[in-house]
Amino acid sequence: MTHKQYFEDYAIGFHRRTMGRTITEADVVLHAGQTGDFYPHHMDAEWCKTQDFGQRIAHGTLIFGVAIGMTAGAINPHAMSYGYDRLRFIRPVFINDTITVEATITEKRNHPRRADHGIVVETIEVFNQHHETLLVCEHLYLVKRRQTSVLAEH
Amino acid sequence: MTHKQYFEDYAIGFHRRTMGRTITEADVVLHAGQTGDFYPHHMDAEWCKTQDFGQRIAHGTLIFGVAIGMTAGAINPHAMSYGYDRLRFIRPVFINDTITVEATITEKRNHPRRADHGIVVETIEVFNQHHETLLVCEHLYLVKRRQTSVLAEH
Amino acid sequence: MTHKQYFEDYAIGFHRRTMGRTITEADVVLHAGQTGDFYPHHMDAEWCKTQDFGQRIAHGTLIFGVAIGMTAGAINPHAMSYGYDRLRFIRPVFINDTITVEATITEKRNHPRRADHGIVVETIEVFNQHHETLLVCEHLYLVKRRQTSVLAEH
Amino acid sequence: MTHKQYFEDYAIGFHRRTMGRTITEADVVLHAGQTGDFYPHHMDAEWCKTQDFGQRIAHGTLIFGVAIGMTAGAINPHAMSYGYDRLRFIRPVFINDTITVEATITEKRNHPRRADHGIVVETIEVFNQHHETLLVCEHLYLVKRRQTSVLAEH
Amino acid sequence: MTHKQYFEDYAIGFHRRTMGRTITEADVVLHAGQTGDFYPHHMDAEWCKTQDFGQRIAHGTLIFGVAIGMTAGAINPHAMSYGYDRLRFIRPVFINDTITVEATITEKRNHPRRADHGIVVETIEVFNQHHETLLVCEHLYLVKRRQTSVLAEH
Amino acid sequence: MTHKQYFEDYAIGFHRRTMGRTITEADVVLHAGQTGDFYPHHMDAEWCKTQDFGQRIAHGTLIFGVAIGMTAGAINPHAMSYGYDRLRFIRPVFINDTITVEATITEKRNHPRRADHGIVVETIEVFNQHHETLLVCEHLYLVKRRQTSVLAEH
Repeated sequence: MTHKQYFEDYAIGFHRRTMGRTITEADVVLHAGQTGDFYPHHMDAEWCKTQDFGQRIAHGTLIFGVAIGMTAGAINPHAMSYGYDRLRFIRPVFINDTITVEATITEKRNHPRRADHGIVVETIEVFNQHHETLLVCEHLYLVKRRQTSVLAEH
Repeated sequence: MTHKQYFEDYAIGFHRRTMGRTITEADVVLHAGQTGDFYPHHMDAEWCKTQDFGQRIAHGTLIFGVAIGMTAGAINPHAMSYGYDRLRFIRPVFINDTITVEATITEKRNHPRRADHGIVVETIEVFNQHHETLLVCEHLYLVKRRQTSVLAEH
Repeated sequence: MTHKQYFEDYAIGFHRRTMGRTITEADVVLHAGQTGDFYPHHMDAEWCKTQDFGQRIAHGTLIFGVAIGMTAGAINPHAMSYGYDRLRFIRPVFINDTITVEATITEKRNHPRRADHGIVVETIEVFNQHHETLLVCEHLYLVKRRQTSVLAEH
Repeated sequence: MTHKQYFEDYAIGFHRRTMGRTITEADVVLHAGQTGDFYPHHMDAEWCKTQDFGQRIAHGTLIFGVAIGMTAGAINPHAMSYGYDRLRFIRPVFINDTITVEATITEKRNHPRRADHGIVVETIEVFNQHHETLLVCEHLYLVKRRQTSVLAEH
Repeated sequence: MTHKQYFEDYAIGFHRRTMGRTITEADVVLHAGQTGDFYPHHMDAEWCKTQDFGQRIAHGTLIFGVAIGMTAGAINPHAMSYGYDRLRFIRPVFINDTITVEATITEKRNHPRRADHGIVVETIEVFNQHHETLLVCEHLYLVKRRQTSVLAEH
Repeated sequence: MTHKQYFEDYAIGFHRRTMGRTITEADVVLHAGQTGDFYPHHMDAEWCKTQDFGQRIAHGTLIFGVAIGMTAGAINPHAMSYGYDRLRFIRPVFINDTITVEATITEKRNHPRRADHGIVVETIEVFNQHHETLLVCEHLYLVKRRQTSVLAEH
């Protein structure tokens, strides 16, 4: 469950795919309860019938949190989550949709101030059961280098 | 609870501040249960004692979700959440920390393809009880324009 | 989110209406888990089929707690919840019913012993999606007076 | 688990006492999540330090719901919960307080319109570990009569 | 709620039957969240459609935990749960199945080392709404004897 | 996340050890809520002070469920959980204890009636932070054989 990887060990193009998970009504209720977001888009089935999307939709932060959790695998003690870029909600997620997540290492770059670490970018895509894209983002990891970057030191 | 605002109605610099919320052990347990992220950083108090941070830390996606929920106020039927940029975890959040959120309209820009909508950027900052910054991000809203942008049509 | 109001500032007839919220099976399961009330009326779908109401019904304390939560708005530092009178369950609430709450200031009266406070009564009515009344009660607030009541001093 | 009792079978003065239950931080977090009441009185430990009560207090509706759940015992198919009168919050309940509930049959009366049923009143008192009263209310049950009331028919 | 029983007081053949409880999707989601078991058998409705059982099935540990909880009645201060033998999952439990539990005292035996206690075996059977057996096990209680066993002292 | 293994592929003595997990008050509250077991041993901190163990103890079914969940790793499509033998609660588990689980393949045997499957026994031991044993059991898996057993056919 621990898998040590230095910055140099990450390969651009490395791809992984999670199992699926069905987003249930209970998930939406629990997420509203955790975040305090009880907007009718998520909680009022009657009002939703009068809107374009026609039914309750899952919170964006729910799908994001679950999708990131689904990508959690082995622990790399040399890496930590640094942040996220370009998080976009492409399609609404409805109750009973089943999501899967694909993650691909798409970029490695120097950290602007830390020569002994680099940034690894993993692009996250979340799909529903119709293979439609629901959410995308770039997950940035701060990863220790095996050898301090010469370029970065300049 | 509904407050209609067009793109033109948003003012750069408009600032709001939420009440506080204490991040509890129960929040961390519930978030692990919702996302499936049971990493020892969040769930194993003994192991955490051996780490630099010395105690369990809240999931980044928990703080993000709760903070965004705390900014949820009146519903604007002309706006929808479009995504987030530059989400960064600045400091770890520990169990029993109390967070508050400040939100400021920092930018308005054209949507690249939709002349009848614009993008409003609200910068989100999350603080703990010591006024230290924990998390920052830019929340992008897609907001209907009262009048179709001439510039955008070109 | 804070709105200071003295006893004198409350107006009889002031009326407000919440957004809707769908009562889900998850709400009933969570409420049973919180209160320990696992009566078959709420938890045994098979037994309920043999009863007059034909299906599981939500706990009265669930509907009461959710409805009161739905009326929580701005904080008035001069007021506190004093209690409830005449709480009545008018119709059963079924899973998937969507409730809305209407609240009306219906009475203001002296406090029997505290001349510097008064009692404000807000009548609460909970409706389903068919505009049928489900629950009614009177919510009593103990509210500071701007000026000590002369009448009450006698 | 089923104990049939007609209106005539209830004895004024019948008294019962529950086991205890500690009100935990998790209970408060879950109740906020279920009801949407995230007021700082319950959720912001820092702000509470600045208030008279000095610490977070449990929601009144939490204590009410848990206390009523604690009194749920055998099912009486001839009785149903009719409502509550004179619900009062006497003292604040703090996280880690342990509550017990005492219930006493204090009144039996005719139903104004239904000759075949009567109202049984059970007075509920909730105590903390210091034997201080926290909450009181009257629980009204609508109970079938073995014999239709002659008085009520007039 | 307390019922004192010594080892000698348990009668072979004593039988009890619980009320029913419907296993909901929320139960499965909450159990996954508590245990961290997010296997697709429980969480991925799409994948389940491709399997023999055709739909999501409840975790075995969920049915076991709920069934044992359903048998919790009066507290016997002379008894404690010692363990379980021959726990077997006979049939899958699907979301919306309603379970009932039957418990029968089937054996009493000496404890190998403690002359002042004996082992009482309660056989547990869990049924669905079609009276099909879902789960069986033997619940072992360690129970104080009224009189120290002579046989066991040898 | 899928790892195909036939009965023949399991090796006696194969051993694995999980990461740790702290059992929180929230876990106990959630487990009481899921199972309906609100016994004072788990829920009444005041009463527990008067008992030998001095503080609240976690439900046995909670520790069992969490421990089994912690051993859930790759999915083996050729195996299914068949049941558990000799589940014993060795020491009480207190709130804030951190558990780890060790699992060892200790036995392989024929299935009494199914020649194309065998039983693999994995012995489970749960430890606290003091390396004391809390719970043991034998997890039985029904596993498909690569080749039908000749012995079992007789």
